[in-house]
Amino acid sequence: MSVATDMESLAQKAREASRAMAAASGAAKDAFLEALAGLLSTRRADVLAANVRDLEKARAAGMDAPRLDRLTLTPAVMDAMAGACREIISLPDPVGAIEALRPRPNGLLVGRMRVPLGVICMIYESRPNVTIDAAILCLKAGNAVILKGGSEALASNMALAALLREALAAAGLPSDAAQLVETADRAAVAALCKLDQYIDVIIPRGGEGLIRAVVSQATMPVLKHFKGVCHAYVDEGAREDRAEKVVVNAKAQRPGVCNALECLLVHAAIGPTFLPRLGAALRRAGVAMRACPRALPLLGEGAVPAAPDDFGQEFHDLVLAVKVVDSMDEALDHIHRYGSNHTEVILTENHDRAMEFLRRADASMVGVNCSTRFNDGGELGLGAEIGISTSKLHSYGPMGLTELTSAKFVTLGQGQVRGG
Amino acid sequence: MSVATDMESLAQKAREASRAMAAASGAAKDAFLEALAGLLSTRRADVLAANVRDLEKARAAGMDAPRLDRLTLTPAVMDAMAGACREIISLPDPVGAIEALRPRPNGLLVGRMRVPLGVICMIYESRPNVTIDAAILCLKAGNAVILKGGSEALASNMALAALLREALAAAGLPSDAAQLVETADRAAVAALCKLDQYIDVIIPRGGEGLIRAVVSQATMPVLKHFKGVCHAYVDEGAREDRAEKVVVNAKAQRPGVCNALECLLVHAAIGPTFLPRLGAALRRAGVAMRACPRALPLLGEGAVPAAPDDFGQEFHDLVLAVKVVDSMDEALDHIHRYGSNHTEVILTENHDRAMEFLRRADASMVGVNCSTRFNDGGELGLGAEIGISTSKLHSYGPMGLTELTSAKFVTLGQGQVRGG
Repeated sequence: MSVATDMESLAQKAREASRAMAAASGAAKDAFLEALAGLLSTRRADVLAANVRDLEKARAAGMDAPRLDRLTLTPAVMDAMAGACREIISLPDPVGAIEALRPRPNGLLVGRMRVPLGVICMIYESRPNVTIDAAILCLKAGNAVILKGGSEALASNMALAALLREALAAAGLPSDAAQLVETADRAAVAALCKLDQYIDVIIPRGGEGLIRAVVSQATMPVLKHFKGVCHAYVDEGAREDRAEKVVVNAKAQRPGVCNALECLLVHAAIGPTFLPRLGAALRRAGVAMRACPRALPLLGEGAVPAAPDDFGQEFHDLVLAVKVVDSMDEALDHIHRYGSNHTEVILTENHDRAMEFLRRADASMVGVNCSTRFNDGGELGLGAEIGISTSKLHSYGPMGLTELTSAKFVTLGQGQVRGG
Repeated sequence: MSVATDMESLAQKAREASRAMAAASGAAKDAFLEALAGLLSTRRADVLAANVRDLEKARAAGMDAPRLDRLTLTPAVMDAMAGACREIISLPDPVGAIEALRPRPNGLLVGRMRVPLGVICMIYESRPNVTIDAAILCLKAGNAVILKGGSEALASNMALAALLREALAAAGLPSDAAQLVETADRAAVAALCKLDQYIDVIIPRGGEGLIRAVVSQATMPVLKHFKGVCHAYVDEGAREDRAEKVVVNAKAQRPGVCNALECLLVHAAIGPTFLPRLGAALRRAGVAMRACPRALPLLGEGAVPAAPDDFGQEFHDLVLAVKVVDSMDEALDHIHRYGSNHTEVILTENHDRAMEFLRRADASMVGVNCSTRFNDGGELGLGAEIGISTSKLHSYGPMGLTELTSAKFVTLGQGQVRGG
């Protein structure tokens, strides 16, 4: 059979299984998660052995150390996957929830009931733990899931997918609700992208190249997260101690993640006092500074002149671009031009400007007097997340269980009919 | 310039204007609507004259009567457009609303603020009043809008778009927030479908061919509504008087619309008493019946045997398919196979089955003991709508002002930083 035929048959089975998943009780879905957590421990040796096969092949092919590291499963990573199952058991089932039923003048009660999206296709790269972490969120939200991981992780992913399917069956749910694409053929992604009669949404996780390839081919909606170029704006009259603490945390607490700070904008009026103390604090935290001509002399040692492309850059490292601006408008213009709709924060003591920044900055999270690092499903109270959407359709920001559902209208009547 | 270059320049201007629209106050947007309502009356003669030019051309090209009718603007249609402006003034501004701010354990207040989607591209067919009706909803929700109407209505649409732009300017808003595609070149749609860096969403309104063409080409999300194949299931033990009234209303009150009933499913236990009285009521309402072999003898005169493709058919006419089923499961299977995710209702006195149907029927509106005709923005309490989405991403069901927005996370802190 051709790859296209294989993909169609797989997607069709997922679509059929999605109907049983949509009707599944919260108890059945939690029984699946419990069974899976157990299998991740009892079948650990199988999974680790499969991972060793992937690693041997990758080493032979000359894969570099950071990628090998991402590909490696350890007992600790296996424990984390089992922990994720138990964490999701503790979250309420979103499906079937009706937030409010309100009467219309004719007595008809109208509300919206949460329903699964249907079939979700995850396309991702190296890390095999995504196979579990993504699947369990999709499944708890009542969806079927198609998993297409990186070809270098195929043996590991097959071992993990086998556990998913066994745990589904153990809970009386259709094992076809979790399906792994078991081919390394690149035509598989192209084929999946055209199956909009079976697949409701594609979620690509990985580099910009992967995401753009999916977006250009897909005929169904794509939930995407390109990159995080996050800014903080330190306003005139900001509390300098707070601003220093927040900026250092946002940049240095975990610099390799998408909600880390990449560019600091500082009002000219506070620059002369704030930038020297901030420069010292950033130096202590090991942060290299790339500064505009006005910020450069104020930051002191360790700061170098910024190149034009340092603005809008996702450094993923202990590097921060710094620029002095003359107004909040200028800061907002800079963010509009260089931001990536991910996370923007203001440090200010002025209420009007806090509210105006909140309204005008266009990002999936806009914060006042807090670190950019809070743009995360767990920190915002959603529980586990499957990614952070930086486009506005369907979901903007971290996507947790609720964001993996939709809502249909429900109407409860006593025989109401519509008049002229 | 090529059509592609023209479209890019137009979309880029819309994107720029969308920033001012997103920041616009509710008062400014309402001033625009007030100005537009005025212009629709003071400039009526210009618009009607342009419409006459479209009609003359269409008649010369041999357009049929129903399409000519859809193309025709009358003083009554102009009044209805002005009325729509005033109705939307009365709806609250969705932008900037925060439904709840809740504290996290660290004191950070977390909420979601409604924000516009950005740039919405409407692609539609004959009726020129869509130019106003769609644009005013998009603009009140703080978006910029690109309008691509049918080429046969180009003069009318240009006259109406001129009023939109004049009213925007009168309210101090950027006139580029409303842009009409002024070419009849079919390459325009293809070009718009690729401009995802400027256009956030495409909403096609028209036949299935138009929608499929947009879906297959677009690299941005598409909010679509294919068709309405709506079912009603009359359960064992349903109140026959209610069921009769609801079925007749759902089918006959306005048979040409997408939320009209197309297929009735009747439990075998109630068929022998219910179908004869329903047959008589449908005959009185002028409805032709296409029945399965078990329903046929019970419906009496006027019923003919159903052909296989009468099930799943959108008749858009006084025609109803009728089928006897042995259980609610069989009814749900039929709906799953033939439904279009639009509207499904159950007539029942049994609470368990009402709740089960509500949960299991997969449609943008699922109702208990009410007409399918309630799947409408006005009837469900959303106010005016721009269409009914039958796919689940972003919005499922009627799309009103709120559905033309997204929501970003907002976080209000006092210097919170993230720990280990």
